[in-house]
Amino acid sequence: MINIALLGFGVVGGGVASVIDTNRAIIEERLADRINIKYILDLREFPGNKYEKNIVHSIDTILNDPEVTVVAEMMGGVHPAADFTEACLRAGKSVVTSNKAVVADCGDKLLSLAAEKGVRYLFEASVGGGIPVLRTLINDLSSNEILSIRGILNGTTNYILTEMSEKGAAYADVLKDAQRLGYAEADPTADVAGFDAARKIVILAALAWGKLLPLEKVDITGITGVTADDIKAAYSDGCSIKLIAKAEKNADGEIKLSVAPTKVPGCELLSSVNGVFNAVEITGNMLGTAVFYGRGAGRDATASAVVSDIIDAAEKKFAYPPRLRWTRG
Amino acid sequence: MINIALLGFGVVGGGVASVIDTNRAIIEERLADRINIKYILDLREFPGNKYEKNIVHSIDTILNDPEVTVVAEMMGGVHPAADFTEACLRAGKSVVTSNKAVVADCGDKLLSLAAEKGVRYLFEASVGGGIPVLRTLINDLSSNEILSIRGILNGTTNYILTEMSEKGAAYADVLKDAQRLGYAEADPTADVAGFDAARKIVILAALAWGKLLPLEKVDITGITGVTADDIKAAYSDGCSIKLIAKAEKNADGEIKLSVAPTKVPGCELLSSVNGVFNAVEITGNMLGTAVFYGRGAGRDATASAVVSDIIDAAEKKFAYPPRLRWTRG
Repeated sequence: MINIALLGFGVVGGGVASVIDTNRAIIEERLADRINIKYILDLREFPGNKYEKNIVHSIDTILNDPEVTVVAEMMGGVHPAADFTEACLRAGKSVVTSNKAVVADCGDKLLSLAAEKGVRYLFEASVGGGIPVLRTLINDLSSNEILSIRGILNGTTNYILTEMSEKGAAYADVLKDAQRLGYAEADPTADVAGFDAARKIVILAALAWGKLLPLEKVDITGITGVTADDIKAAYSDGCSIKLIAKAEKNADGEIKLSVAPTKVPGCELLSSVNGVFNAVEITGNMLGTAVFYGRGAGRDATASAVVSDIIDAAEKKFAYPPRLRWTRG
Repeated sequence: MINIALLGFGVVGGGVASVIDTNRAIIEERLADRINIKYILDLREFPGNKYEKNIVHSIDTILNDPEVTVVAEMMGGVHPAADFTEACLRAGKSVVTSNKAVVADCGDKLLSLAAEKGVRYLFEASVGGGIPVLRTLINDLSSNEILSIRGILNGTTNYILTEMSEKGAAYADVLKDAQRLGYAEADPTADVAGFDAARKIVILAALAWGKLLPLEKVDITGITGVTADDIKAAYSDGCSIKLIAKAEKNADGEIKLSVAPTKVPGCELLSSVNGVFNAVEITGNMLGTAVFYGRGAGRDATASAVVSDIIDAAEKKFAYPPRLRWTRG
């Protein structure tokens, strides 16, 4: 029996429980073992919920139970998520996460701690929830020198730009609609100012080149200045405007990261990525260019990535390679 | 030191040597060990080639050398490639391959033999050379029930259909150009009649559902009957015509495989996959739909996939899961 704990029972945490319950047969066949959600850490109670009795309020309950071998952190924010992660790794438990803030902020420390303790720290769900791109970078492109990465990494801004383009509407009006539909948060800053995409390109670059750059090194322009006229003008040149996050290593080995609204020619696949979908384009020196496309967010897609990481952490067959002992850039 | 042997020193075999030589530093860092191409099996001599002295003409040289732990088979055709693969696995060597005919024909037997011997049989390069889709199906979608797979899996036919569409040209004329440019073989039957795509959808379906269906169970229509008028008519409906390979599992658990020219609406990403590029669209019950796009063939892209498999086989960290004990359907 594989006993796991969930930290956070919000949208993603609830999704993880639901993916495990829905696909239990497939997951247990894969694990060749049973899987049990033993604890769910949350500040709230969940009366009437199937997992009501599994709710705990102290991380110590989880830390002190040697039966729990894998912990899925889906709390959001850097603290206390990072502290709980560190405590779990120190206690010899593998941790998987959807929390990009923690990975971008202290992924280097957590990866070396995991390596030291012989456990896993996996974070497929932190970038492009429904796009299995992190392990692809690690595994399938392992024979390539990565030359560049470009992506549409934020669903909210891509939805807004798509709507502005299709309806000829103004930014402020589309944002209001997006907030009403739940595609944008009440305070949309992290998305529209480009910080969310910036954290994700930091993680992708660290996977590609082993160097974790601070957010301040990313040249960030959000979409708040994009007008309906800009989009019309781009369209008449056969282009779309997309919020493109970009990572490149130049000839001197220097890594350049940026996020900015960019004119993308209609002949490029990225120009056809619309609505809340995301895509990541990776160019390797041997592979050429490959593009990975899927839902960037959404409960089930993100939860599905977390559960795939739980399976890998439980099997202990997959580990990020030594190159992933990230250094700070 | 990891000693490997290559079976076949044609386009892909030469590409594998070139990827290893070009990216040796990255590959050896990843392996935390040195890698050495000890033998290359080919009928021909290669005077003046860097690997001239490594050429051997008998598989026994490789079978009898316990230093060789990983063999990359890139011979093409079922025999003797399958026999050599079996002999290598029996000798306790892992085998990786780009040979879709062998995988589609006897992947089930070779996978169980590998499992029995505690070695690896990996074949990422057999479907969509530059698209890392096989391991994605296995690893990243491990928490999903796969509902369907659709793909543009053959570069030659996609090139022909793209040219017919862009130039309004007739099938026969475009085929002649494609042959002149090396995008189509002198005898193009395997591609244009749909057999190549059919073998690939057989492999994808086996990965998704653990059942290896014979080629005869695939409902195959090639592109030879597609006219410039068909393409024009589709265009005026906002569609492209693509050779779509499809795998679906119906409510009764029955797997349906087909390859046929298909009208694809312009709003779908697959309609924008042009020229020799390929794409695979996978729908999971939790993930939703994800699309993987890249070079379907070409020396370096395919070789790059073979080398990633060599790394995995050498590390022995990755193995296809038990579900991959394919049964015959």
